[in-house]
Amino acid sequence: MTENNAKMAGSAGAAADVSDLDRRYSFHPFTMLAEHERSGPPLVISRGSGVHLEDVTGRRFIDAMAGLWCVNVGYGRDELANAMRDQAATLSYCHAFSSMASDMPAVLSARLIEMAPSAASSPMSKVFFGNSGSDANDTQVKLVWYYNNVLGRPQKKKIIARSRGYHGVTVMSAGMTGLPGLHAGFDLPLPHILHTTAPHRLWEGHGMSDEAFTAKLVDDLEQLIAREGADTIGAMIMEPVMGAGGVIVPPRGYYAAIQDVLARHDILLIADEVICGFGRLGHMFGCDALDIRPDLITVAKGLTSAYYPLSGCIVSEPVWETIVKGGEHYGAFGHGYTYTAHPIAAATALANLDLIASENMVERAGAMGAYLHERLADAFDDHPLVGEIRGFGLIGAVEFVARRDTPRAFDPALKVAPRIVAAMIERGVISRALPNADTIAFSPPFIIGKREIDAVVHAARDAADSVMQDLESAGAWSRPASVT
Amino acid sequence: MTENNAKMAGSAGAAADVSDLDRRYSFHPFTMLAEHERSGPPLVISRGSGVHLEDVTGRRFIDAMAGLWCVNVGYGRDELANAMRDQAATLSYCHAFSSMASDMPAVLSARLIEMAPSAASSPMSKVFFGNSGSDANDTQVKLVWYYNNVLGRPQKKKIIARSRGYHGVTVMSAGMTGLPGLHAGFDLPLPHILHTTAPHRLWEGHGMSDEAFTAKLVDDLEQLIAREGADTIGAMIMEPVMGAGGVIVPPRGYYAAIQDVLARHDILLIADEVICGFGRLGHMFGCDALDIRPDLITVAKGLTSAYYPLSGCIVSEPVWETIVKGGEHYGAFGHGYTYTAHPIAAATALANLDLIASENMVERAGAMGAYLHERLADAFDDHPLVGEIRGFGLIGAVEFVARRDTPRAFDPALKVAPRIVAAMIERGVISRALPNADTIAFSPPFIIGKREIDAVVHAARDAADSVMQDLESAGAWSRPASVT
Ligand SMILES: Cc1ncc(COP(=O)(O)O)c(C=O)c1O
Ligand SMILES: Cc1ncc(COP(=O)(O)O)c(C=O)c1O
Repeated sequence: MTENNAKMAGSAGAAADVSDLDRRYSFHPFTMLAEHERSGPPLVISRGSGVHLEDVTGRRFIDAMAGLWCVNVGYGRDELANAMRDQAATLSYCHAFSSMASDMPAVLSARLIEMAPSAASSPMSKVFFGNSGSDANDTQVKLVWYYNNVLGRPQKKKIIARSRGYHGVTVMSAGMTGLPGLHAGFDLPLPHILHTTAPHRLWEGHGMSDEAFTAKLVDDLEQLIAREGADTIGAMIMEPVMGAGGVIVPPRGYYAAIQDVLARHDILLIADEVICGFGRLGHMFGCDALDIRPDLITVAKGLTSAYYPLSGCIVSEPVWETIVKGGEHYGAFGHGYTYTAHPIAAATALANLDLIASENMVERAGAMGAYLHERLADAFDDHPLVGEIRGFGLIGAVEFVARRDTPRAFDPALKVAPRIVAAMIERGVISRALPNADTIAFSPPFIIGKREIDAVVHAARDAADSVMQDLESAGAWSRPASVT
Repeated sequence: MTENNAKMAGSAGAAADVSDLDRRYSFHPFTMLAEHERSGPPLVISRGSGVHLEDVTGRRFIDAMAGLWCVNVGYGRDELANAMRDQAATLSYCHAFSSMASDMPAVLSARLIEMAPSAASSPMSKVFFGNSGSDANDTQVKLVWYYNNVLGRPQKKKIIARSRGYHGVTVMSAGMTGLPGLHAGFDLPLPHILHTTAPHRLWEGHGMSDEAFTAKLVDDLEQLIAREGADTIGAMIMEPVMGAGGVIVPPRGYYAAIQDVLARHDILLIADEVICGFGRLGHMFGCDALDIRPDLITVAKGLTSAYYPLSGCIVSEPVWETIVKGGEHYGAFGHGYTYTAHPIAAATALANLDLIASENMVERAGAMGAYLHERLADAFDDHPLVGEIRGFGLIGAVEFVARRDTPRAFDPALKVAPRIVAAMIERGVISRALPNADTIAFSPPFIIGKREIDAVVHAARDAADSVMQDLESAGAWSRPASVT
């Protein structure tokens, strides 16, 4: 750093300066820009260690979201910092265009194929690397289109995604994302994209049995396919457990039934493992946890625990063979990023996977997840504002509603979940309010301990109570008669 | 690394193993996949230092392409390796969603705005970070669409790019790229994208004066705009000097004239500085070198010298103000990557910019570029196969043709440029054959010295001669009568 940078970024006394630089020069994602320009950032983080973040003024927080569901091995791990430094000193970059290769990405590809969930009928075969979950899902669409062109089915191109699914923000992946906040103002989704019902019990199947709810969801999908024509639909994309859209776990039987439908209509299945992959659900992959047998798998986030941007499209053998055949007609496969197969990215991922293995972190995520759900149930089961407590492995959410028995949402203008999250920050815990509902999420680093989980859940309950009281005294909510 | 990884990747004796892993498990970008599956990679690189790369068998090469026009400060710089390690240990990740901030990205934003080429009438204002040139250009399109929606011009959405321009590979940016190899098989470009004539003298304006050629190019653009309707066109995207499309430097007067047209039709100008930015042309930005005043700037590659994936959309004040206003209607700005404003990315970029400044690398790129062009002229001016020698600053290209006087291209099946590049590799120099022509490119690290440039140019000439002889003896080319 220049002296000037150091001055601006380094000392606690300069905290206000950094905050002002951010306000003046940074274009923030998913932010109310006018408000940010007025007030600047509420937090300027400058340190991270284990499950903790620290801001420029020295305040310390438990990060109950692991960043954005990604810092799975925790902050500041020397193993990863050193792997990056060593690889940068050894080979800081190499491209993979025109058959050129470097060692680390080859080793990582092999390791990923060995680990990947595979159906006997279509084993996973190759890995295409990118930089983000968004670009990997964008690549998946290009693969599906190319595949169907090679097979002589130029009409079979539409992609089915689910309402509330989150698949990223390129023009193509933002379209697949089933959240209106990513579409408004951007003319999205493009017409190639269809959305089907989210497997969201609270709003789509309240009171239904697993069987009945699954049947409804399958029926919605069948109707969509019938309406559009199966010969126009190339693939369906799904997160095993939806993350950003609400931490939504489908009813039992759902994936088996959905996969039957897709197989019958020759529609490829893309499993978006960007959040679930590498242990978050207490299994190495979400597909393992929920018995999904995809044709294409998207990985990102947990692959490097967010130390280094890296994503992958894992492609099954039948899809790969078709794409290879395409070369006869189309020549060299005309797609790739400058940073596809980056050696530092691969070295970081290998070190991260080693750490996950050597510290039994997948098992640990499962065990800590079970404890988290126990504690959330204790704290929120009887809470008058709570519509649903959800989760699987080390991912959880609590959804707040104005009315519990026949669920009714709060007026979004009340900003119930954002207020609870703000109150949690005051209590030293970083959580996240998810879009299009009043849901707060929990997705901590795998290394979190029970005492820290206790603190997180306590802060959440305390924050929810204080917001509830505020709402009550403002007359924006009234306690149901049955609750005393 | 596990012992197993180390074994596979580490020792020279295991070279064949790594090569085989790559062949079996890696999905390579821009590659003949069937050939790769048969033969594996021609090179497996495992080390890099300064301007040199070394493969797993110990062969050493001058990398005359700086990777893919990106490793500008050279391989293995401790300053960058240490910056990454230190930042990973201090704060390995922080998101920037929902107004959350961390220190390094704020400092980097300020520094970029301070450096960025700015017109007095529309100074640069904010930086939106991404991971790749592709995602940044994808974001630029989303910004243009959002901007025109806010201004109540929902029709003004088409994007003009240029034939041979390279803007990346997402569905949207691959469409903007004006190379057929990125479109075939992928149903691209989408209908929102238009292409106008490349400012490529050899094929579009042979023998014309700068004035006449500029007038032709302006006329082509005017006709395109008239045909489509200016009220349907949101932006035009241009690389100051085209890189991957052929290292194409427009005629004098071109940018002034093109910008007049755009201003008249209220069409935003996106400068894609992914290759040119941060010194490649002997100026900090291509826009400085060629007097371009853009509304939006895309940066990537040279911002971190490829040590860490990072891109940016630099947004001018008038565009920013409009986007902020959009919040009144659309709410939070619904776009952003998990790794937007990554603290390690920002720390790496700051260390890289420091290195460029402290070693006067922009000046050095200019000086070494001048020497490169001198040497290329010496070696190739009179060469019977050479149609054009092009370049600007430390970027150069030689285009080979079957006939010089009235230019005629070689039959692409002869693969003249790929054969020259393969012959250069045998001579210890890595160059690159560009698509859709027989052009070989030079874009070495800024730290290259004169002796190394001599070696690069010598290898290129020698390789070209040997390929020419092969072509002659195979009867695929005959020496013009005038050349003895
Ligand atoms: C399931 C899922 N897919 C894709 C993405 C997009 O990844 P990125 O932000 O790295 O582009 C995300 C990010 O949150 C995600 O959660
Ligand atoms: C001018 C230009 N723009 C955009 C890109 C795309 O960048 P990336 O490969 O990082 O997506 C490139 C890559 O070569 C480029 O040269």
